[in-house]
Order: sequence, then structure tokens, then C-alpha cells
Amino acid sequence: MTDEISDTPTAHLAQGDAFTWDDIPVLQYKEDGTHFRTVTRQVLFDGAPDLPCQLRYFEIAAEGHSTLERHQHRHLVMILLGAGEALVGEQILPLSLHDVVEIPPGAWHQFRATAGAALGFLCLVPVERDRPERPGPAELEELRQTPEIATFIRL
Amino acid sequence: MTDEISDTPTAHLAQGDAFTWDDIPVLQYKEDGTHFRTVTRQVLFDGAPDLPCQLRYFEIAAEGHSTLERHQHRHLVMILLGAGEALVGEQILPLSLHDVVEIPPGAWHQFRATAGAALGFLCLVPVERDRPERPGPAELEELRQTPEIATFIRL
Repeated sequence: MTDEISDTPTAHLAQGDAFTWDDIPVLQYKEDGTHFRTVTRQVLFDGAPDLPCQLRYFEIAAEGHSTLERHQHRHLVMILLGAGEALVGEQILPLSLHDVVEIPPGAWHQFRATAGAALGFLCLVPVERDRPERPGPAELEELRQTPEIATFIRL
Repeated sequence: MTDEISDTPTAHLAQGDAFTWDDIPVLQYKEDGTHFRTVTRQVLFDGAPDLPCQLRYFEIAAEGHSTLERHQHRHLVMILLGAGEALVGEQILPLSLHDVVEIPPGAWHQFRATAGAALGFLCLVPVERDRPERPGPAELEELRQTPEIATFIRL
């Protein structure tokens, strides 16, 4: 979060055909772990006191996936590149270009690039937010009671 | 703004190649006025107590323009369709697909679809925000002291 309120316009220009922007570093999705696969993260807007939301761009390479997790903060997602699928709560949603998905508080979710190509999406979150939680054995057992979810999830 | 916290996922699927979504009405940009031209508005996310930002999609038809205005709330914009130009503060920025532009509080701004085709963009704002202000004679005179801005603006 930026504490100072900037009074000059900031433009991050998209670079060529790739989904990268000037002055925006391409980061690891998370510091470490084996619960995700081939995901990058770019923070397009880091939040400001008068606009307390962050806008990130995540890109999952073909066959990759984000972490299966849940948290109390809400996500708003828009697909910006490719296609794929997501578990959101108890639904597995097909995802195509420009689809908008709202992930409510507490909903288990995982994004997968299942269409043979990268899946890229914007994700809006509040600046002040709780840490994600991963499923323990009891939660996994509950998730796996739905056959489609059992087949879909990656750990 | 939605007062109830929804606990079911909401998906707004993009409709075909057009920039419309299921369950999202295409609205007039503003109720009335002659200070804008051929602009539509779609509210993709109306804000929630735990994510107090709205995400709108605006589309300006070829040769159209948004209102020249300023306000104290910050805008975050991402180009989603086509190309064009924007006045932001004292700069005229070229706009291409996926460019990200932050419009700081109090900056005069106007978007124009100058590339012979529609210009579509996401615009993120706080739910609680002040009303836009249009330039009066004194502000217009000041804006017009910069020849590029004098040529660019539409009233």
C-alpha cells in the first residue's frame, strides 16, 4: 500500500503482445511451496488510501494451477488471456476471455489452465486482507465428497 | 453498493465477441448532457462492504469522448478494447490495449476514441466518492494555455 497520495498520473504501458507492463516486475506467485504450478504475479495497482484495493495480474502456464485455498476477503476476477476452469465454492466454472467471477468470502477456490494454453486474469482484492488458508485433511475429505471436485483439485 | 455479503459465487460470462456480459445491463454513460459523445457504461462489480471498489466498463464509439472532468476520487483504468488518447492532468497519453493508467485526485481527464474505432476500458473507483466537476470559464482558460490541451479537449 502506498501511503503517500500521488498527484501525478501513472501510466503502465502494455509491452508488445506479451502480458507485461513497463515498470511492473513479473513476480513469483508465492515465495515457495509445491501447492501451485507455473504461476506468475504482477501488481498493477498497489492500493492507495483513497482506493484501498489492489489489482494484480496472474498468469498460469498451460496445465498449471493456483493454490487451492480460501480466505475471508473477497476476490473479483476477470479473465484477460486464454481460457481454463476454476473451482469456486462448490462449482467448477468454465472460464473464457473477459468472464468476470466473484469469489465470496470463505469459498474454496483454485484456477487451472486446462485449455492447453496459458490462463491470465486480473484479480481485485482489498488492501487489508487475511492470509489464505489451505485445506487440512478434514476439509479435503469434505471437498472430495463431490466427485467432480475430487477430480478437479490439485494439491 | 451491495449491503448484503453474498456467499455464492457470481459469474458474469462474456457474451460472444462483443464486450457485454450476461446479467450486466448496458447503461447510458450519464443521464443527460452534451459534454460527452457515444459512451456506454456497464457495472461489472458494484462494490461490497469487504471490497469497497466498483469496477465499470466504459466503451466510447469511434470519434466519441467522455466528459472533461475532475474529482477527488482516484481512478484506475485499464484499456480492454481498441486504442485512443486521454488527457490526464497536463499530459495527453496514447492508449493501447492493456495499458494501465492511474488518474490521481483532482486531475482533469478526458478519454477520446481517436483511433477510428471504439475505445473500451475498465475503470476502478471507490464506492464512496465525490461527484465529478466540469471546468468553468476560468479553468477552461487555464487548460487552454497549453496548445496541445486546447486542441485535444472536447466540451
